Amino acid sequence: MLQNRRSFLRTATAGVGATLLGRRPASAAARSLGKTVGFAIAGLGSLSMNQLLPALRRTGIARLAGVVTGTPGKGRRVVDEYGIPPDAVYSYDTMHRMADNADIDAVYVVTPNVLHLEHAVAAARAGKHVLCEKPMAGSSDDCETMIRECGDAGVKLAIGYRCQFEPHHRECIRIVRDGDFGPLKLVEAGLGFTIGDPAQWRLRRDLAGGGALMDVGVYAVQTCRYLTGEEPVRITATEAKTDPVKFAEVDETVAWHMEFPSGAVGSCTCSYNAQGLNRLAGHCAGGGFTLDPAYSYGGLQGGSSHGRFDFDQPDQFAVQMDDFARCILEDRESIVPGDEGLRDLRVLEAIYESIRAGRPVDLK
Amino acid sequence: MLQNRRSFLRTATAGVGATLLGRRPASAAARSLGKTVGFAIAGLGSLSMNQLLPALRRTGIARLAGVVTGTPGKGRRVVDEYGIPPDAVYSYDTMHRMADNADIDAVYVVTPNVLHLEHAVAAARAGKHVLCEKPMAGSSDDCETMIRECGDAGVKLAIGYRCQFEPHHRECIRIVRDGDFGPLKLVEAGLGFTIGDPAQWRLRRDLAGGGALMDVGVYAVQTCRYLTGEEPVRITATEAKTDPVKFAEVDETVAWHMEFPSGAVGSCTCSYNAQGLNRLAGHCAGGGFTLDPAYSYGGLQGGSSHGRFDFDQPDQFAVQMDDFARCILEDRESIVPGDEGLRDLRVLEAIYESIRAGRPVDLK
Repeated sequence: MLQNRRSFLRTATAGVGATLLGRRPASAAARSLGKTVGFAIAGLGSLSMNQLLPALRRTGIARLAGVVTGTPGKGRRVVDEYGIPPDAVYSYDTMHRMADNADIDAVYVVTPNVLHLEHAVAAARAGKHVLCEKPMAGSSDDCETMIRECGDAGVKLAIGYRCQFEPHHRECIRIVRDGDFGPLKLVEAGLGFTIGDPAQWRLRRDLAGGGALMDVGVYAVQTCRYLTGEEPVRITATEAKTDPVKFAEVDETVAWHMEFPSGAVGSCTCSYNAQGLNRLAGHCAGGGFTLDPAYSYGGLQGGSSHGRFDFDQPDQFAVQMDDFARCILEDRESIVPGDEGLRDLRVLEAIYESIRAGRPVDLK
Repeated sequence: MLQNRRSFLRTATAGVGATLLGRRPASAAARSLGKTVGFAIAGLGSLSMNQLLPALRRTGIARLAGVVTGTPGKGRRVVDEYGIPPDAVYSYDTMHRMADNADIDAVYVVTPNVLHLEHAVAAARAGKHVLCEKPMAGSSDDCETMIRECGDAGVKLAIGYRCQFEPHHRECIRIVRDGDFGPLKLVEAGLGFTIGDPAQWRLRRDLAGGGALMDVGVYAVQTCRYLTGEEPVRITATEAKTDPVKFAEVDETVAWHMEFPSGAVGSCTCSYNAQGLNRLAGHCAGGGFTLDPAYSYGGLQGGSSHGRFDFDQPDQFAVQMDDFARCILEDRESIVPGDEGLRDLRVLEAIYESIRAGRPVDLK
């Protein structure tokens, strides 16, 4: 049974909206004050159409206020299905006009990786806060430019690291922070699937900036960083390519190690040509924890040496957008600011450099 | 809940003997002919006392015929508990006298890694077949000497790779060989535990030849080799040490990649200072399989994209010894001959070399 990118990440998201709506935690207060935050979704690919737009029906204070798309038909579909005003549909050429639309507070950039910078900057210059999908950009240089532009424009910038808002991942982080099983020694993290349509942008270097590593390897990099709470000092990587035609421009399978100052090691894998890779595990001297699947949009499973986890499975995108909305309303920094995306890009670049150079790469 | 080496590998072995005795497959025929094979166990550490000696009560044609020990009290205990003749208890200085004991056909060498060569050669020169625990020796040079000595003596040599006789592992191998999910792209394999007594031989380089990598990392090396059915061409390794006192002489945690000619990659980990590492997974383009725990003496669990595995859990040591006994009776080579041990040692040495040199190491 082949799983494509959508189906494998979508595991069991059905029905989780009700849970979230039933709780509506910090957002209830904000909404009762009548304060909501308007989001424009820039880029109407499958993530936006299948996850983000539906998620905006489950949010507390984040609400859909517009879209940016290069495909007018998709814009009309959102107008029809979600009831946004027809003049809240922008193209990439007209999105600067959002400056005149007070209903839009923030732009969620969900375009191909390499285009994130252009669209984030356009949003920032229009005075809109920016929530940018991961990987943050095609290069760390682009990340730095994005951070500077958002700073200059006085808008907030956060990266779409939904796992950092997810209860299972939060518990794994807590276990390490509280030292439940002593110091963390080894992290395993891997994400992969068999990619479908060979014509898609994810297989084009000029749009994706890289392959499996940029798209799903970034989850493993993030995991090692948020579990250890440290920055890696050395990267050692290995690439494998079994289909040089399909993966002519980008990486197919990458494995890498991340060494941390504490002595903890991350052993990570990602692939565009392998099934069943969707897991994290943390191993401490006195016990450990596992999530498998770890990175799906829902249906996460896992446990620790103390027993199985039993957490709610909220709509991760709804929680993430509500959190950014609260950051805007309360004028505070996100827990996943632009700097998080920049740090991950630096690691991704070090992984590619280690593969190219055939040696470990030290990070400052 | 801390698990030491014994408890973590011993998971749920209780009661499996009955299953095996109830089936007594190929051995029944041999036993009915009155043909059995006498084993002397050389080295009465915990593996021998807690696993091998009890296993010899569950075997079909392998039977206990003697022991070799440096501790006379342990020898007397085996005489009392297992009813072997007092003159079938040898010391390492007297084991050459086994040549005169026709009741002993084979010696199972279960001494510290670096001593395997000396004891295997002593057994071979006494005309006894040799079953040697893994890792086969302290170096690949020693492996080559052992193979040559056994060849010169005209005795059989096999290595204690019990997993190769275990139904869950056999099924994983079959899945890859039959191409159930297409070509194998990525193997993950890891084994580790928190080592106890700091005075034990496993932490001494002169006896163990190395640390976690030699002791439990060898399982992951074997797994990658028997799953792919290939020999690795490149090794890239990373070591982490968080306790330089306890692990002054040997490695604590090692992570490494194995690249195979087909393009498959093995991502492996081992540790003497981390819990919960006991798993293999194979990822193919169309599906995959997992065992977790994978390397315990019993209680293995796992499944594939087609569903959960439901196999017998035989006494792995009994099956292994019966198989070697049949090899002797039928005069055929074991599926895990000395050459298997040698090949693994070469990989282990390449892993250490990659760590030392700080670069990938190519294998011929």
